[in-house]
Amino acid sequence: MQRLESSAPGFAKAFASIVADRRDSGADVAQDVARIIANVKAHGDEALADYTSRFDDHRLETDADWRIAPEECARAHAALEPALRAALHLAADRIAAYHRAQLPEDRDYRDADGVRLGARWRAVDAAGLYVPGGRAAYPSSLLMNAIPARVAGVSRLVVATPTPKGAINPLVLAAAHVAQVDEIWRVGGAQAIAALAHGTQRIAAVDVVTGPGNAWVAEAKRQLYGTVGIDMVAGPSEILVIADGANDPAHIAADLLSQAEHDPLAQAILITDSTALADAVEAAVMAQLRGLASAQVAQRSWEDHGVIITIASLAEAAELANALAAEHVELAIADPEPFLDTIRHAGSVFMGRHTPEAVGDYIAGPNHVLPTGRRARFASGLSVLDFMKRTSFIELDAPALAAIGPAAIALAEAEGLPAHARSVAIRLPQGEHR
Amino acid sequence: MQRLESSAPGFAKAFASIVADRRDSGADVAQDVARIIANVKAHGDEALADYTSRFDDHRLETDADWRIAPEECARAHAALEPALRAALHLAADRIAAYHRAQLPEDRDYRDADGVRLGARWRAVDAAGLYVPGGRAAYPSSLLMNAIPARVAGVSRLVVATPTPKGAINPLVLAAAHVAQVDEIWRVGGAQAIAALAHGTQRIAAVDVVTGPGNAWVAEAKRQLYGTVGIDMVAGPSEILVIADGANDPAHIAADLLSQAEHDPLAQAILITDSTALADAVEAAVMAQLRGLASAQVAQRSWEDHGVIITIASLAEAAELANALAAEHVELAIADPEPFLDTIRHAGSVFMGRHTPEAVGDYIAGPNHVLPTGRRARFASGLSVLDFMKRTSFIELDAPALAAIGPAAIALAEAEGLPAHARSVAIRLPQGEHR
Repeated sequence: MQRLESSAPGFAKAFASIVADRRDSGADVAQDVARIIANVKAHGDEALADYTSRFDDHRLETDADWRIAPEECARAHAALEPALRAALHLAADRIAAYHRAQLPEDRDYRDADGVRLGARWRAVDAAGLYVPGGRAAYPSSLLMNAIPARVAGVSRLVVATPTPKGAINPLVLAAAHVAQVDEIWRVGGAQAIAALAHGTQRIAAVDVVTGPGNAWVAEAKRQLYGTVGIDMVAGPSEILVIADGANDPAHIAADLLSQAEHDPLAQAILITDSTALADAVEAAVMAQLRGLASAQVAQRSWEDHGVIITIASLAEAAELANALAAEHVELAIADPEPFLDTIRHAGSVFMGRHTPEAVGDYIAGPNHVLPTGRRARFASGLSVLDFMKRTSFIELDAPALAAIGPAAIALAEAEGLPAHARSVAIRLPQGEHR
Repeated sequence: MQRLESSAPGFAKAFASIVADRRDSGADVAQDVARIIANVKAHGDEALADYTSRFDDHRLETDADWRIAPEECARAHAALEPALRAALHLAADRIAAYHRAQLPEDRDYRDADGVRLGARWRAVDAAGLYVPGGRAAYPSSLLMNAIPARVAGVSRLVVATPTPKGAINPLVLAAAHVAQVDEIWRVGGAQAIAALAHGTQRIAAVDVVTGPGNAWVAEAKRQLYGTVGIDMVAGPSEILVIADGANDPAHIAADLLSQAEHDPLAQAILITDSTALADAVEAAVMAQLRGLASAQVAQRSWEDHGVIITIASLAEAAELANALAAEHVELAIADPEPFLDTIRHAGSVFMGRHTPEAVGDYIAGPNHVLPTGRRARFASGLSVLDFMKRTSFIELDAPALAAIGPAAIALAEAEGLPAHARSVAIRLPQGEHR
C-alpha cells in the first residue's frame, strides 16, 4: 500500500504513475487465441470438444454433456434457501426496472424542408453471455448481462460457461432460470467465444457477445469484434473512495476491502482531507483483514495496489478523480451533490455515507458491468443499448428532393462521384438538371 | 453481375453465398500494425516522422510540416465557389440538426424503496477523426464524423490525415473550417491512429478515434480498441434496392452505380418482382456506364459483385433483406411504410421513389457512417453517443439501505465475497447485522 500526500514534493510524479499503471495480466495470448478461433471456425463442434477435454477435463459427447437443460436450472432455483431465492428475485426485479427505463425512443418527424427523417431501435436477434467458471462464476454477473438483453427484446439468449470436471455453480443455474436464459452450453475460454461468434453444428451463431472472462476470453472478444458486437474489454476492478474526516473508518476500510477481495490485481484508493481518518482507515484495513475468509486475495491487492492519498482540501479531489477515471467512485462526504457535478469520468458514483459500492454490485439496479482501467473516459456501463441497434430512415417527396437535391449534386461532383450526382439529378424536373 | 431467380432451383445456395461473401481486402496486416503501434508508443514523433517520410513522401520538420493552421482552412473555405460553399453549409446545418435531436437525456429519480438512481451523459474530452488521403478524402466524411462530436460537446477535435507529397484536398480543409476542427495533423495510416491513441510529444492523446481508412487503419483501430473508444470497423460499401415494376429503370440503374463507383469491392444488389424492370435496369446500367467518369471502378464492382434477384412477390423481399442486413436499403416501391416495419436489419432505409441513397451521403442529415458487411445485425450508424459516455449513480439513505441491504448481504455471502457483505452489514442497525 502506498501513502501519498498531495502537498509533498514528488506527488505529481507518484500520482501519474498510479494513473498510468495498467494492472493487466500482461499475458500475450493473441497468437494462441487466433489459432483457437481459426480451429473452431474450421472444425466446429469437434474443435470445441477437443479443447474442452483438454482445458476443462470435461468430455462433450451426449447432449447432456454439451448443454444444461432448463429443467436443471429450474431445479437449482427451487432448491435455493428461500431468503437467497428472494434476494435473487429482488435483484432481478430491481435490475429490470432500472434497465427498462433505458429503452430508447424511436424518432419520426418531417423537417422544414419537407424531409421525413427518423430512426428505429430494434433488439439484436441473439445474444451470447459468457460466464466464467471457478472463482468468478457470479450469479450476479449473469443477471447483470442477461436482464438488459431480455429487456432490450433479444429473443434468443445463450450462455456459454466452462464446467471444469463437469462441475457448475448451482447459483449460476438458478440465476439463469430467473433471467430466462434459453440455452446454456458447457464450453469456455476463447473457444466458447469463437463458437458464439461463428456458430458450430450445435451452437447457432449470435450477434452480440458480452460477459467477463480471463485474458483468453478478452482477447477472443477483441479479435471477433466486427464479426459480432461485444461489450467493452474489461480489466481488473477498482474503487476510489473520497471521504471526509467525519466517516467511521471501519466503514471506509470495509469498502476498500470489498474491492480488494475480487482479485490480487484489483485496486482500492482512498482520497481524504483528514490525516486522522487516513491513519484510522489504514489500521482498520489491517484489523478487518484478520479473520476475513478472502484475506489472501484482499491483502495482496491492498499491499500491491492499495493507495491512500491525503489532500489539503476536498476541492482537490475532483481533479484527481477525473485523472483516475475509476470504475467505482464513492463520495463518502457530507454533501455529495455538488461534487457529483465535478466528476466527469467515472463508471458509477455511490453517493453519501449509506451507499457502499457493494449495493451496486447486487441490488441497486444500475449495471455492475462498468468500464475499468480509465476507460470511463470514453466508455459506459453495460445497458440495453449494447443489445440494440438503430436504423435511420429518410423519405423525400418530389418537392423535398427539389429543395435539397441540388446541394447533394454540388457536393457529389466536388468529390468526384458523378454517379452519385446523377442519381439525384435524374429525379429532378428537367430544368434543374445540370 | 449475377442474375438470380428466387423460384429457380439452387437459389437458396446461391443467395447464401452472397450473404456469406465478405468482400474484404484479405490483407493480413496485424503484425505490421502491431509493430507500428509499438514503435509510435516508444518513439513518438520520431517514429511518426520516419513513417511519414517513407509512406507519404512528406517530411515532418517545421511546425507547418506537421500541422495545418486554422487560417489555411479558413482560406480554403473562402476560396470555394459560392454554390459549393452554400452546399457545404446546408449539409453541415442539416447534419447538426439531426444529431442534436440524438442527445440523450439524463436520469435522476427515487424509487419505491427510497433509492435514488440515475445516470448522467457527458462528452468525451477529446476525439480524433481520421481522414484518408487520396481518392477517399471526402469532405462529407469529415462533416459526418466531426459534427456529431461537436454536437456531443467534445471540447478538443483533432483530425489526422496523410498528405502524400504534401498535397491535401482543399475541400477537406474547407469542411474542417465549417466543422470547427481544432487541430489537423499531417500523418496517416496505422501510425496516425497510434499517435491519437497513445499521444506523442506534439500530439496529445484523444479518448475516441473514428473515421474510415484502409486495412492498416482499420486494424490499428481494432488493436487500440480499449485504449480508446472507436467506431465500428467498416468494410466496403453496399446498397440493396428493392424496386417494383413501376420504377423508371434509369433511376434504379443510377442508384446501383452510385454505390458501385465507390470501390471495386462495393456491392449493389437489386431485388424486384418485375422481370421486365430487371432486364431494363441491367441494360440501363450498361448504358450509363458509358461516359461515366468513374466507370472503371463502377464497372468492376458491378461485374464482380453486382446482383439482380427477381422474386415472385415483394412479400419475399423482407426476408432476403434481413439476411443481407445491408448498409443502405432503398425501398423504391409504391407504399414503403408497411415495408419499413419488416426490415429488422439495415444501416439506413431510403423510402419511396424520390429518395436516392446519395441524398443520405451528403445532405439529408442522418449519418452516412453506417454498419457494413452484415454488421447492421448488431451495430448502428455513427451518432453523438459514440462521443459520449454515461455515469450511473446511486444514493441510499439509512432506511433505503435497511430495505435492500440484507438482500445484497445474502447474495455476497452466497458468492463467497465476505468483505462485500461486511461493507453493507456494518452500516445496518445492530439488530440487522449477521
